[in-house]
Amino acid sequence: MSTDDVLLDFGRAERIGFDEAIFCPGKSRAQLIEILHRAQERGASLLLTRLSSAQREALPVELSQALDYEPVSRTAFFGPLRPEVGPARIAVVAAGSSDAFVTWEILRTLRSLGVPATAVQDVGVAGLWRLLDKLELIKSHPVAVVVAGMDAALPTVLGGLYGGVIVAVPTSTGYGVAEGGHTALNAILASCAPGVMTVNIDNGYGAACAAVRVLRAMDRR
Amino acid sequence: MSTDDVLLDFGRAERIGFDEAIFCPGKSRAQLIEILHRAQERGASLLLTRLSSAQREALPVELSQALDYEPVSRTAFFGPLRPEVGPARIAVVAAGSSDAFVTWEILRTLRSLGVPATAVQDVGVAGLWRLLDKLELIKSHPVAVVVAGMDAALPTVLGGLYGGVIVAVPTSTGYGVAEGGHTALNAILASCAPGVMTVNIDNGYGAACAAVRVLRAMDRR
Amino acid sequence: MSTDDVLLDFGRAERIGFDEAIFCPGKSRAQLIEILHRAQERGASLLLTRLSSAQREALPVELSQALDYEPVSRTAFFGPLRPEVGPARIAVVAAGSSDAFVTWEILRTLRSLGVPATAVQDVGVAGLWRLLDKLELIKSHPVAVVVAGMDAALPTVLGGLYGGVIVAVPTSTGYGVAEGGHTALNAILASCAPGVMTVNIDNGYGAACAAVRVLRAMDRR
Amino acid sequence: MSTDDVLLDFGRAERIGFDEAIFCPGKSRAQLIEILHRAQERGASLLLTRLSSAQREALPVELSQALDYEPVSRTAFFGPLRPEVGPARIAVVAAGSSDAFVTWEILRTLRSLGVPATAVQDVGVAGLWRLLDKLELIKSHPVAVVVAGMDAALPTVLGGLYGGVIVAVPTSTGYGVAEGGHTALNAILASCAPGVMTVNIDNGYGAACAAVRVLRAMDRR
Amino acid sequence: MSTDDVLLDFGRAERIGFDEAIFCPGKSRAQLIEILHRAQERGASLLLTRLSSAQREALPVELSQALDYEPVSRTAFFGPLRPEVGPARIAVVAAGSSDAFVTWEILRTLRSLGVPATAVQDVGVAGLWRLLDKLELIKSHPVAVVVAGMDAALPTVLGGLYGGVIVAVPTSTGYGVAEGGHTALNAILASCAPGVMTVNIDNGYGAACAAVRVLRAMDRR
Amino acid sequence: MSTDDVLLDFGRAERIGFDEAIFCPGKSRAQLIEILHRAQERGASLLLTRLSSAQREALPVELSQALDYEPVSRTAFFGPLRPEVGPARIAVVAAGSSDAFVTWEILRTLRSLGVPATAVQDVGVAGLWRLLDKLELIKSHPVAVVVAGMDAALPTVLGGLYGGVIVAVPTSTGYGVAEGGHTALNAILASCAPGVMTVNIDNGYGAACAAVRVLRAMDRR
Amino acid sequence: MSTDDVLLDFGRAERIGFDEAIFCPGKSRAQLIEILHRAQERGASLLLTRLSSAQREALPVELSQALDYEPVSRTAFFGPLRPEVGPARIAVVAAGSSDAFVTWEILRTLRSLGVPATAVQDVGVAGLWRLLDKLELIKSHPVAVVVAGMDAALPTVLGGLYGGVIVAVPTSTGYGVAEGGHTALNAILASCAPGVMTVNIDNGYGAACAAVRVLRAMDRR
Amino acid sequence: MSTDDVLLDFGRAERIGFDEAIFCPGKSRAQLIEILHRAQERGASLLLTRLSSAQREALPVELSQALDYEPVSRTAFFGPLRPEVGPARIAVVAAGSSDAFVTWEILRTLRSLGVPATAVQDVGVAGLWRLLDKLELIKSHPVAVVVAGMDAALPTVLGGLYGGVIVAVPTSTGYGVAEGGHTALNAILASCAPGVMTVNIDNGYGAACAAVRVLRAMDRR
Repeated sequence: MSTDDVLLDFGRAERIGFDEAIFCPGKSRAQLIEILHRAQERGASLLLTRLSSAQREALPVELSQALDYEPVSRTAFFGPLRPEVGPARIAVVAAGSSDAFVTWEILRTLRSLGVPATAVQDVGVAGLWRLLDKLELIKSHPVAVVVAGMDAALPTVLGGLYGGVIVAVPTSTGYGVAEGGHTALNAILASCAPGVMTVNIDNGYGAACAAVRVLRAMDRR
Repeated sequence: MSTDDVLLDFGRAERIGFDEAIFCPGKSRAQLIEILHRAQERGASLLLTRLSSAQREALPVELSQALDYEPVSRTAFFGPLRPEVGPARIAVVAAGSSDAFVTWEILRTLRSLGVPATAVQDVGVAGLWRLLDKLELIKSHPVAVVVAGMDAALPTVLGGLYGGVIVAVPTSTGYGVAEGGHTALNAILASCAPGVMTVNIDNGYGAACAAVRVLRAMDRR
Repeated sequence: MSTDDVLLDFGRAERIGFDEAIFCPGKSRAQLIEILHRAQERGASLLLTRLSSAQREALPVELSQALDYEPVSRTAFFGPLRPEVGPARIAVVAAGSSDAFVTWEILRTLRSLGVPATAVQDVGVAGLWRLLDKLELIKSHPVAVVVAGMDAALPTVLGGLYGGVIVAVPTSTGYGVAEGGHTALNAILASCAPGVMTVNIDNGYGAACAAVRVLRAMDRR
Repeated sequence: MSTDDVLLDFGRAERIGFDEAIFCPGKSRAQLIEILHRAQERGASLLLTRLSSAQREALPVELSQALDYEPVSRTAFFGPLRPEVGPARIAVVAAGSSDAFVTWEILRTLRSLGVPATAVQDVGVAGLWRLLDKLELIKSHPVAVVVAGMDAALPTVLGGLYGGVIVAVPTSTGYGVAEGGHTALNAILASCAPGVMTVNIDNGYGAACAAVRVLRAMDRR
Repeated sequence: MSTDDVLLDFGRAERIGFDEAIFCPGKSRAQLIEILHRAQERGASLLLTRLSSAQREALPVELSQALDYEPVSRTAFFGPLRPEVGPARIAVVAAGSSDAFVTWEILRTLRSLGVPATAVQDVGVAGLWRLLDKLELIKSHPVAVVVAGMDAALPTVLGGLYGGVIVAVPTSTGYGVAEGGHTALNAILASCAPGVMTVNIDNGYGAACAAVRVLRAMDRR
Repeated sequence: MSTDDVLLDFGRAERIGFDEAIFCPGKSRAQLIEILHRAQERGASLLLTRLSSAQREALPVELSQALDYEPVSRTAFFGPLRPEVGPARIAVVAAGSSDAFVTWEILRTLRSLGVPATAVQDVGVAGLWRLLDKLELIKSHPVAVVVAGMDAALPTVLGGLYGGVIVAVPTSTGYGVAEGGHTALNAILASCAPGVMTVNIDNGYGAACAAVRVLRAMDRR
Repeated sequence: MSTDDVLLDFGRAERIGFDEAIFCPGKSRAQLIEILHRAQERGASLLLTRLSSAQREALPVELSQALDYEPVSRTAFFGPLRPEVGPARIAVVAAGSSDAFVTWEILRTLRSLGVPATAVQDVGVAGLWRLLDKLELIKSHPVAVVVAGMDAALPTVLGGLYGGVIVAVPTSTGYGVAEGGHTALNAILASCAPGVMTVNIDNGYGAACAAVRVLRAMDRR
Repeated sequence: MSTDDVLLDFGRAERIGFDEAIFCPGKSRAQLIEILHRAQERGASLLLTRLSSAQREALPVELSQALDYEPVSRTAFFGPLRPEVGPARIAVVAAGSSDAFVTWEILRTLRSLGVPATAVQDVGVAGLWRLLDKLELIKSHPVAVVVAGMDAALPTVLGGLYGGVIVAVPTSTGYGVAEGGHTALNAILASCAPGVMTVNIDNGYGAACAAVRVLRAMDRR
């Protein structure tokens, strides 16, 4: 099996403003090496998502050490990081500490895009005061990315209190009927609060990109 | 087809304290007439649930007129009603006015059992102040039956604010992923609030019986 | 059954910037009349969604005639309409003409909020040139609401060509595995294009609100 | 990644009468250490649920040894235990010995809350005499928590013989269509016996809390 | 559209001992007439299943009147009936009176095959005494066809008390999670009682054929 | 609502060799009229699929009468028909007469494309001789479109006996677990016979197009 | 945790003619030892099903060596085996060699009950001649237990050729839509052949018990 | 357990033109050895699919070394390979490099059948230019096998641009709602492009056979 099946989309930034990110599950060692070498040749920076420890450790040491890896989110930066620009306009609001693997995928994706953000964690609505205490802080951001698993009631409650953009991310945290995140996803989709949007279960990368699309719309004028 | 396939369980009240209630879907005119006649012979009172208008209208007029029918809940009382006894110890808390068909099945079932209740409606958490305004009222009851469809976030929020017994009833209100009530049911089951219980989708009758089981435990001493 | 179970949320506009809209399925004639009367008393305007012809025709004639009703989307305006302000910043992009019931719910909701929009219809990607012909038009808007049923490939293709905000709306159009819109929804959630967001199946109202939340973020500075 | 994402809800006992319990799946070593240290600082006792052997063994030895760990239920007590008060008012009734991992989560949660209970195990209805032999014992308790997997017929049969409060817990025991516990859950929800309530699959913790809510209602007068 | 697409399998009785039965849903008037005429030509008797009232009324009057139609089961006999032979060796045991449409499809299919049976109805296990009262009667038959909807606990309980052949038939009776009969089916498949068999939801015809296969095995020696 | 949302794809024949066909569900009277008028203007012929009787009858009489409508398949030809060319190279093989609504959609689509075909109906494998009798006839065609509902065993059995191209079409015929056709679809996808392909449930139109793609490949040399 | 939660049902043989069998998944080492000791004390023989190698190896060596273990089926006999009595009246017919883990659970369960059987393997209908070659052999048995995974077409084809009792066992063999065996199960339930019965996915034990119930009915006269 | 349960279908090539291929999951070491020995005895060549590394390594070294094994696809050739004949008439078109395990199963199956093919990889439509660049190359082949996971939009877009035969293969690549490949499968089945066919999720072997059936039809004249 040759690796010329890897066509990196280095033109994507021009077309839609995002560098290519590499989704790592199922990629072989040979494919990952090829991808990193091509990026090196062009001097491009890359974000790698869902890179397992095993995949990282299997890389040649000079590539492995060149990665800035964060294990909770399983993300890695390759190549120089963009500087962060301007104040935080995105609040990343998470219901529980079990959702940290998604929360950190969002924060790391935003970092790789040079976009500052504010993290507001552990504010699930079964302890309502935790959210109400942080409400003014959240309101100071035009965009909220809201991370919630299990019954995912947080986006609905926030959606009735906050008029900014809400990008919800259901997580696969939970067991029984919550296992896999479908209940969280469906609860968000069925939310009674007007104008809550969602992305795929555990898709922190996608939510960060969605939030950045909103910032770009804001910057367009 | 003969009707001696109808074995009414008139001994149920003795065993577990509930009169037999008649679940009407799929029952033929002949079966319904037989059931009502047997109850008449014994001087028993009956609650009929999910009796469609068509079923009611197909009955002989003397039976049809003997029914105390409520169309939103599609319930009917047959025979003399028990008196209501004591103060309301059950709060029936409903998220939205579209859930009224379930809310009223609960209230009517409680009425048929002679149990007073307080209705608190339209307090869905997408408009959080509506719930907070009624919180003290709800807290004055040891048992809350909580009716919610769509994303059913209400039982979770209430479960974090109220220490009484919570019997949730998911409803089939909604469309898309909410259609049929499975999202509401699963959201309740996956609730982060400790000790929230549920019954089947739209099962107002069962929720009322569950609440009455709790009252009986309270009265046991 | 009394109607004081209707608690209209007239304060919602203040909190999050949307007037209350009335979701009509399951609402009785009495509830609808009560809602319209309360709005009249306060001089409030209302948007009614998913109002069936039967529900509309059952209203007293003075209320029925006061509604500005559109049958494809089953929406009605009650009370004076806000003026439309400014240029169209939202493109409503629809894959097929069978999705018109959703497309028009979006357009009508935006109209009720006084937000101009541009409709771009019948550009499903099985005939790719139709989309490519309209690409520059779409790009001139910072926000695209994208309506697609069946396999819902349109948001993915557009997501790779357009850097603005994309709010996808899966529709229930289709049969077999497409029936009910779950395939469209899941295809959108699983999209390879970065940053595509979605709302519930057929939820034109919610998508319009989501797009307006983005416009407000844009206007915030 | 910092750990200030952990906001323990030490006020929960005041609001709804339950101490915070820690659901351990997905929590990192650092998060668990932080949680235990904060509890230590405040002199609070904690219940940890679904703590894997691997998670426990990864803790510093002084924390690991401070845990009172039970491996079947994967629960741990941290800090001094409350005394048990009064006679057993809760019967924990289990269909099969394969369900012991749930049965013991219930018993351990009740123990952590200081609530005595009676265990009645291996009384599945495929051998009906086993249940009938224990019926008087069960009836001497006002509340029964009923654990059942596979087809979960036990709550229905008990529901027709016993007038007390029934909190059912479906378990994930089984294979084929029973795998994951959804059949057990749905059979309980569809029960013909009036007033049976349920919690999520394998949710022994939640069932114990629900039973305790009932005891508190009983003690309220 | 011609009707020579109808290939009746008049040789089936020879091969496996059952006459062809006609499953009517989706069959056009022309197809039904063709089928009945071909049977008439050969002097064959037919059983028609799930023949709607509308389909029957649309037939030419001489065909319509030649049918012996039973509306609860929607079955019709066409042509002379076989005589019933011997004592009843099959007990048809039904949990509830709402399941009568299936119970009668079984009884009518057996009648068309000339096989006597005993009906034992309304013995659902939520009122356990009803079953126990009939247990000796059921035990006097070597085969039991057991009809149950909702949580379908009856086959499990009977399976632990009765050593004969058990053919269960789940029914679509119920609502919420029980809607459509999948919970009943799955509960039967997951039964803890050894050796319970099942057929498709509402498949009274198939259950009757299965029971007759057993009788033929008994008669084989 | 204007009708300029209808963008007919008259260039499709050039690109991929199929004229546009009109999928009618959800299309309004105004949309259908607009479509037919545009086709008339260009002298184009159209195939309409799933046109309900109600939709047809609602058309202006001159359009309604210009349609060549077949009610079982709910298809209509509009404009002059292409001549049929050459011998039948496609066998349309159907398991049961209840599947005729799909069988005829295939035959009518092929007719509209000018492609002759041979119908072989009612050869379900529960009566195996029916298929074996027709095997030589089927083998004389290079392509078989195989229509089957319920358990859809026909494509597997044929796939082991016939080396030509097999395009299976699962149908929604059936009840219980067969309802909606998902079991038929999945059984075909899981077929042990090598090289069986499928299309969506009830998608006779798509299967016909697939078969024609094969004929074109055959004609390419 | 004590082991007095194990209530062996040694009276089951009297009630319904089957010794207790031990379903091992989820059982702890302590529970298994307790069960084997109790059987030893009473001189009872036991069948253990789904006993993993790990569970077996964890037992004390004197118990482990006393087991007659078969690794494909993961069954073990404990205590003296009943003699086999009489000729084989059950044919165990299997579609593929990947289903051997189920086929052998059936054969081993029958052996433990002292019931002889004939194995007919690898006769899946994608190679039809394999089944036709064995048809006379199968027909010489009054009962066939039919094992099939993936699309499970074998029971349908056999059901049209063989008039004996058919107990089908769907298996979890397969991938994609076949994964888990639900397609095989549903295809069997939807079978067009009259009188095919089924048990849970992979439930070889249950199918063997069902077949033995039929033999007992045959022996009853 | 004996191995005479293995009936290899060496006559299949005659009947339908494919040699037997061995699907390896669930096959024991003994079964695999038996199969390879029988093939050796007859001088037959075999394709083994989904052979895990563990299974391969467990074989006797002379068999293990006789296999031509490819680890990404987990396929092995046993015995002499057929020569490749003629020009490539099949294009294998893959959306992403994560799908390589399926792409290579297709290519290896075609190789084992002696059929040349052209691989076109990494042309997912979220970067549309990648597909458009390769369109002429694809069009030069009469058959395209199209591999796509997640939302699987590629077959639809290609289906509107390319008139040849399209055999789609959904893959299990992805997470959340994409996990397991059901969304990809359903999106393909619901495709708006006319005449797209599919096989089971990840079924590269079946897709290759389907494509070869088409080539044979082309060669038939």
